[in-house]
Amino acid sequence: MARVVVDVMLKPEILDPQGQAIVGACGRLGFEGVTQVRQGKRFEVEIEGELDDARLADVRRLAETLLANPVIEDFELRVE
Amino acid sequence: MARVVVDVMLKPEILDPQGQAIVGACGRLGFEGVTQVRQGKRFEVEIEGELDDARLADVRRLAETLLANPVIEDFELRVE
Repeated sequence: MARVVVDVMLKPEILDPQGQAIVGACGRLGFEGVTQVRQGKRFEVEIEGELDDARLADVRRLAETLLANPVIEDFELRVE
Repeated sequence: MARVVVDVMLKPEILDPQGQAIVGACGRLGFEGVTQVRQGKRFEVEIEGELDDARLADVRRLAETLLANPVIEDFELRVE
């Protein structure tokens, strides 16, 4: 069994109101020095059997199709 | 400037209906071998100046207060 982590983040040019709200709250709660926060999604995908190139390509396709919106989001795969 | 990544995931004993829905969709879309998917949140926190221990402790407190719900979620910090 193998685990692939898929990190999905908004593209840099896309406004991130959730992240901005968190920065605002940081100021009010006394957390200093926080200049920016970006919020995204993290998926842990568990795969049966060996993680060969074909399976990894499957997970990439899964991320493009189901986990990320390629118009506004970028994603990265990490094998753990 | 430094960047700290905060990964927030549901605790293992907490049911993850979103993850289960994704596994169901994988079957229908022909992605084989996916046994489990867990969905969580990923935050990229940018900090002004040097990231010393005090600042890192601040980010940990920020994660506990604002970014994660300690009752149902665990989180991990990673310095990038």
